[in-house]
Amino acid sequence: MTENLASWNDGPTKSAIVAFVDKVVAADVPVEERVAVFDADGTLWCEQPVPAEAGFILAKLAEMAEASPERRTRQPWKAAYEHDNAWLGKVITDHYAGDDAGAKLLLSGIGTAFADMDVENFQTQSGTFLRDTMHPTLHQPLVGLTYAPMLELLRHLEANGFSTWIVSGSGSDFMRPVAQEAFGIPTERVIASLSPIEYTAADGGRITRKAQFGFLDDGPQKPVQIWNGVGRRPLLAVGNSNGDTMLEFEPHPGRPSLRLLVNHDDAAREFAYGSGAERALAAASENGWTVVSMKNDFARVF
Amino acid sequence: MTENLASWNDGPTKSAIVAFVDKVVAADVPVEERVAVFDADGTLWCEQPVPAEAGFILAKLAEMAEASPERRTRQPWKAAYEHDNAWLGKVITDHYAGDDAGAKLLLSGIGTAFADMDVENFQTQSGTFLRDTMHPTLHQPLVGLTYAPMLELLRHLEANGFSTWIVSGSGSDFMRPVAQEAFGIPTERVIASLSPIEYTAADGGRITRKAQFGFLDDGPQKPVQIWNGVGRRPLLAVGNSNGDTMLEFEPHPGRPSLRLLVNHDDAAREFAYGSGAERALAAASENGWTVVSMKNDFARVF
Repeated sequence: MTENLASWNDGPTKSAIVAFVDKVVAADVPVEERVAVFDADGTLWCEQPVPAEAGFILAKLAEMAEASPERRTRQPWKAAYEHDNAWLGKVITDHYAGDDAGAKLLLSGIGTAFADMDVENFQTQSGTFLRDTMHPTLHQPLVGLTYAPMLELLRHLEANGFSTWIVSGSGSDFMRPVAQEAFGIPTERVIASLSPIEYTAADGGRITRKAQFGFLDDGPQKPVQIWNGVGRRPLLAVGNSNGDTMLEFEPHPGRPSLRLLVNHDDAAREFAYGSGAERALAAASENGWTVVSMKNDFARVF
Repeated sequence: MTENLASWNDGPTKSAIVAFVDKVVAADVPVEERVAVFDADGTLWCEQPVPAEAGFILAKLAEMAEASPERRTRQPWKAAYEHDNAWLGKVITDHYAGDDAGAKLLLSGIGTAFADMDVENFQTQSGTFLRDTMHPTLHQPLVGLTYAPMLELLRHLEANGFSTWIVSGSGSDFMRPVAQEAFGIPTERVIASLSPIEYTAADGGRITRKAQFGFLDDGPQKPVQIWNGVGRRPLLAVGNSNGDTMLEFEPHPGRPSLRLLVNHDDAAREFAYGSGAERALAAASENGWTVVSMKNDFARVF
């Protein structure tokens, strides 16, 4: 059955999506194998000017610098306090280029920012941040900056027996408090980066965050996390132009497969950005992935 | 609604189960919070004389010793080749007593036994082992040695809106190939120990096991794994007399809660074993957990 896909313009991308789902149904693929995985930042919701979790962390670091002046001279607190997004941007660019010096500094700061916090308390804070923080240029709360065509695609898949999963580089305790309201996806289908947490038996059992950076569910870790969390190869994988190894992770031969790569080429309605896009678009062309042009394929964005 | 619970004898245990589920429904607890977690070995299926995965590993180590005589003089291959279950038993006893020397030896052997094997191949081998291996005294294939009252409890919970999860110290790639047929639980609701695996992009993406021992989902790691995998505190937790930290991990105050501790006290129909049972039974008494006596509460075992 075809659910409402009204936010998609007619064209080869929409046709490829509808044809893929119809093929899965026509081939009578067992329901338990109908697994669809979606990256989050830049795929299901906006990741500019910074991914939502980075914004959350920067706000927390700025708060720490506010409370303690000596931190204002040290990174990552200095950048957070001075709203120096360029420093963070460089950390990310360096990371993708293989230089993790800045990332290590940032991650050690993040570790101290949330050390010993109960996971429930962390979730409450991240949920509040996502609901209450307005995007600087799009003038909507961050939680609402989900792409309408992607929400329709999620529902279309579910109506055809798919289970839909989020596989994100952001933290699972960051994403989960809003997963149902933002994406219609329950917490247990959010596979994301895991920060080290520990259990103590006091008071009916407490789980708290450790003062370390966690595992970044990115690059080659994504297929591993899909395997550990789902235990199956996805028929559909959707990522964006930052590049995404999970698009390479194919179902078993003979199973229908679709790989969608979202290209951020719409400066008027969202953002146009190319970091890594050339490489991702070349990979798409080489591997037969379907490129989703936000400009051409999205009838509306949000 | 009460599903068939005919394999449970009437008595306080069965009454406590029925009353708990009725209370969850009457209190209109949101369906997404109706989470029930079950240990596997000794809780959902037989773990004597050795847990199923230990049997699988020993068979593999024996096969390696068969092929290579020099291994027959070294542990863990020596014990596997000579069917020396006493050595393995001591490794486990020592582990629970805090001495992991034997466990390290065993785990390093396990690492080499499955190194570089595709996860799919590993699953095929473990599924075949569980279906084809007869239990030495109970004369049924291992996959069939599930406890009938527990299967009924799983279905009763699901009929009342619960999601049921396996949280096991055995490996996830070991349990998952039979999770649906043995327990009626889909692969993605099996949270178990994770062995280190790695992804390579060749051939549509391969995931292979590394030559290391993985994470043992036991002790204080169980609540952590529940949090990472489910993202919620369980209303119902079921473990057995080896003791289980996940029974301590309580839902939020005000939510209905039930903790079941399976006591293996039925030498006639299964096994009676006390390793750790005194401590677990004392904890049950102290914390108000409900003890399931296999002898008195199970009308039939298998």
